[in-house]
Amino acid sequence: MTAHIIDGKLFAENLRGRIAGHVERLKTEHGITPGLAVVIVGTDPASQVYVTNKAKQTAEVGMNSFKHELPGDVPEAELLALVHQLNADPAVHGILVQMPVPKHIDPNKVIEAIDPMKDVDSFTPANVGKVQIGLPGPVSCTPLGCLMLLRDHLGKLEGKNAVIIGRSNLVGKPMMQLLLRDNCTVTVAHSRTENLPEVVRQADIVVAAVGRPQMVKGDWLKAGAVVIDVGINRVPAPEKGEGKTRLVGDVDFASAAEVAGAITPVPGGVGPMTIACLLANTITTASLINGLVPPSDLTA
Amino acid sequence: MTAHIIDGKLFAENLRGRIAGHVERLKTEHGITPGLAVVIVGTDPASQVYVTNKAKQTAEVGMNSFKHELPGDVPEAELLALVHQLNADPAVHGILVQMPVPKHIDPNKVIEAIDPMKDVDSFTPANVGKVQIGLPGPVSCTPLGCLMLLRDHLGKLEGKNAVIIGRSNLVGKPMMQLLLRDNCTVTVAHSRTENLPEVVRQADIVVAAVGRPQMVKGDWLKAGAVVIDVGINRVPAPEKGEGKTRLVGDVDFASAAEVAGAITPVPGGVGPMTIACLLANTITTASLINGLVPPSDLTA
Repeated sequence: MTAHIIDGKLFAENLRGRIAGHVERLKTEHGITPGLAVVIVGTDPASQVYVTNKAKQTAEVGMNSFKHELPGDVPEAELLALVHQLNADPAVHGILVQMPVPKHIDPNKVIEAIDPMKDVDSFTPANVGKVQIGLPGPVSCTPLGCLMLLRDHLGKLEGKNAVIIGRSNLVGKPMMQLLLRDNCTVTVAHSRTENLPEVVRQADIVVAAVGRPQMVKGDWLKAGAVVIDVGINRVPAPEKGEGKTRLVGDVDFASAAEVAGAITPVPGGVGPMTIACLLANTITTASLINGLVPPSDLTA
Repeated sequence: MTAHIIDGKLFAENLRGRIAGHVERLKTEHGITPGLAVVIVGTDPASQVYVTNKAKQTAEVGMNSFKHELPGDVPEAELLALVHQLNADPAVHGILVQMPVPKHIDPNKVIEAIDPMKDVDSFTPANVGKVQIGLPGPVSCTPLGCLMLLRDHLGKLEGKNAVIIGRSNLVGKPMMQLLLRDNCTVTVAHSRTENLPEVVRQADIVVAAVGRPQMVKGDWLKAGAVVIDVGINRVPAPEKGEGKTRLVGDVDFASAAEVAGAITPVPGGVGPMTIACLLANTITTASLINGLVPPSDLTA
């Protein structure tokens, strides 16, 4: 193995430290305590774990954390009413509705109900558009985390050939905007791309975000490429015992690490960055809501 | 010369014919006469020509055309008040403020004042975001025109390698969204791209939108590539007499036509499509405002 392992866990820890500093500054200099409201509908165990982690990390950086738990059969109108209440609450600077919501609720309606000024996931059309145009605002958390890791490892990204595999609204498309803004030549590849390995082989930077376990192989990579693996896939791990599982990325780590210059592991790479960037976005929105310039080290 | 010449003038004429059919249908079946309001500030001769053409073509397809001329020294507040008045006017389904506006007026403020439902240029962040997410709404006129020409010439675009040269908010970035939605593998190249000719040489589809006269040469192209030339550059034409000029694109037409499979000329290629797509967008917004499904043949 030759690749440098990009330690997302450590980076996220340092980022949270910087965020705590900005929280302290907002409190003492401006009398603002940033507040993040998380809404969870139903009792999905994975969602419960995420929400608990978010609340814990929000409190740890000194922000106010507001948790709203609604039963799985809550009427859509009631959820929308809660969102409107949070929109109007001056103590709340970020609103996150944990997805997926139960099937009787239209997720687009929920997203459109969130005040774009408090849309820390950058899900609303207005915030998606602002990222493309280059106006200040929150940026999708996972792509922002990937960008921070890339900038930290490479310094300037200008002129690099970046290939993004996957074109989801959550990761691929906002990632394309951020890498373009950092002056990469950006290619977006996906399920309909012909000769994908050849396309990937031209990349200095590869971002894999397709949700297929270990799809990207080492021989798809240019020697020295920097590989960001966004995938989090649970696969059987019989070697750990019957019925056991383990987490793998969209990249075949073992073969990729032989060729890449640097690579994020799964777990411990991009994963820990997402919540940290959610907190970063809450600083950005709390600043903008109060007419302050957001800190430049917490956004794209 | 071997390339097929894509006749944008003819296509735009046919498109306007289809638009006239939709106008007739909206009038007779729904009692709606689509209306497009164009606002021009000052007396810039080029802008006057554009606005006159827009008004003429709007009337020709049977829509209502509203023209508002404001003096070049109009206060920003007065322009914004007019936009708000047009937002509230039920006879107006599309609002276009001719750019550039004079320097004492902030163009972003003007754009943000336009109701996204009537933003037929697709300049507002909400509409830009909707294009990325895949929600219905108006789509930037010039990229929409390029897409229509490509679909007409190639049929399905799926799996094609598309390279866009230029990443402007007006053309390059919305073009990237539309080609991605049509299942192309999309690369965006720009002034910081390294080895641009080599990047372009991999493209089945080339969209040139940089504003540099005749920059893209024939030997940058893969044999048989389809070339869409968005550039409109005025260059000296001493062969036509002293002080004379002519229009050229971003592509060196003579050498490119030897290699390309098809190419749009300048003038007569993309240019005529832009106003036709503005009218198409007005049908789209008039439909959406009235709770109707927009015609699928007029949008992306």
